[in-house]
Amino acid sequence: MKLAGVLLPGEDTVRIARLDGDTVRVVTDVARFWADARGWTAKAAALTGDAVPVGSVRFVPPVPPSARVVCVGLNYRAHAAEGSFAVPEHPTLFGRWTASLTAGGASAPVPAGEAGLDWEGEVAAYVAEPLCDADADTARAAVLGYSTFNDLTARRAQKLTSQWTLGKNGDRSGPMGPIVTADEVGDLRDGLRVRTRVNGTVVQDGDTRDMIFEVGEVLSLISRTLTLNPGDVIATGTPDGVGYVRTPPWLLTPGDVVEVEIDRLGTLRTPIVGPDGRVTASAPS
Amino acid sequence: MKLAGVLLPGEDTVRIARLDGDTVRVVTDVARFWADARGWTAKAAALTGDAVPVGSVRFVPPVPPSARVVCVGLNYRAHAAEGSFAVPEHPTLFGRWTASLTAGGASAPVPAGEAGLDWEGEVAAYVAEPLCDADADTARAAVLGYSTFNDLTARRAQKLTSQWTLGKNGDRSGPMGPIVTADEVGDLRDGLRVRTRVNGTVVQDGDTRDMIFEVGEVLSLISRTLTLNPGDVIATGTPDGVGYVRTPPWLLTPGDVVEVEIDRLGTLRTPIVGPDGRVTASAPS
Repeated sequence: MKLAGVLLPGEDTVRIARLDGDTVRVVTDVARFWADARGWTAKAAALTGDAVPVGSVRFVPPVPPSARVVCVGLNYRAHAAEGSFAVPEHPTLFGRWTASLTAGGASAPVPAGEAGLDWEGEVAAYVAEPLCDADADTARAAVLGYSTFNDLTARRAQKLTSQWTLGKNGDRSGPMGPIVTADEVGDLRDGLRVRTRVNGTVVQDGDTRDMIFEVGEVLSLISRTLTLNPGDVIATGTPDGVGYVRTPPWLLTPGDVVEVEIDRLGTLRTPIVGPDGRVTASAPS
Repeated sequence: MKLAGVLLPGEDTVRIARLDGDTVRVVTDVARFWADARGWTAKAAALTGDAVPVGSVRFVPPVPPSARVVCVGLNYRAHAAEGSFAVPEHPTLFGRWTASLTAGGASAPVPAGEAGLDWEGEVAAYVAEPLCDADADTARAAVLGYSTFNDLTARRAQKLTSQWTLGKNGDRSGPMGPIVTADEVGDLRDGLRVRTRVNGTVVQDGDTRDMIFEVGEVLSLISRTLTLNPGDVIATGTPDGVGYVRTPPWLLTPGDVVEVEIDRLGTLRTPIVGPDGRVTASAPS
């Protein structure tokens, strides 16, 4: 089952909806959904009410405004190597705020001081239950589902200092696809192919079986410092093939279209626009 | 004027209230407040309605769940030096999610894997207006006010990898005081004394005039990558005197009380509790 965040016409409350091809059926609003994600997911599967054409809704991130998006850097050996990083002993975690998130189809603007944006196609995992000092098996079992994600990066801002946060939180730089429930995805350790294309050319072609730290292990580690809440997200890291390490560097510039396609999770499409695109209204909260 | 986040008895909607000594007067709910922070602040100054005793409300952070708390690391030369860091060429920015925030008086738990929590007393600045590609003067003028802040740090988690995010987002590790409007604070470059005390002993005694990057400059830099929204917060960095660099290291452990006192902003008090304290309900959103 696919679950998406949607805005109905004329409304500003984010709803979670079941996505069935060209139609959606509203489940409940985003706050209620994450307060009982398991219960609402079961109800969503049984929904038989009126279907709304996807063309009449606006897709938005399916998470509450308070959600933490914890991103794992350097989680594939070949990606760590291409950036001249050592293979890390622990998951390298940095954060995105929900203010940086958007949905598939939305444009991503290049800030004025950047030569472009870099792509980082990856799998996002959505936490269904509170996790505090959880072990890896418990944490992995608490994942509601997974989605496509593109951790679009402003490399100049990322590399300004030792901390990557600024370059990872540009306006609308975090597009995420609909959640596909875990029963339809299986275990990431069994392998999902992750491909990123720029204007149709494949630039990343990885497999989640090559992750250094798997999702249960990462969630467990995080839960030993902070209590993960329902609706929190882990972005599991990107395979090799990013743009800034190429010779010459290759970055996304206005007019480009970047796509992230992942087995069982679908394709996430993001057109790139110029700095003037920053002023477009951000996603509602 | 002081503005605080409060929960009224039996309610779960955060309100912004004017704080006058031992009483508060509710202004509006937190979402409406930040949608027009200037207008509501003017209305707050003119409020004459019923005063509620502070003992009957619960203080909570005065920001929306979507707020970004952008923290400036290494923003005082003596603090950079005590940690053996070079004086940075640019503000070293890392992030806190609102899920880590709390108010004065609330307990802060030490995670099970940490020897304790470290103190980092500092000034927080609250953004009143959207800032996109703003210059430093414009950005500084967009600050609604300032508060006390303690950037309580789980050093083990912070130092696990190159990225500090995990160790800066422990449960209830970010206590913040009421906002004091900028007209009563003045310019941080003119100097506010920042003192931190542990069980009554002064451990930090700094002055905001020693900041390397002042608040307008920091906000301006951030706004060139991401659009700051009303309710976003800058934690302006801590002076020297933190605990982990001492010989032997000195960290906060259960039973300790840490206080941050800043000229014109008041005193922020945080009792430290053990790992079992993590399970207490987190702040409502």
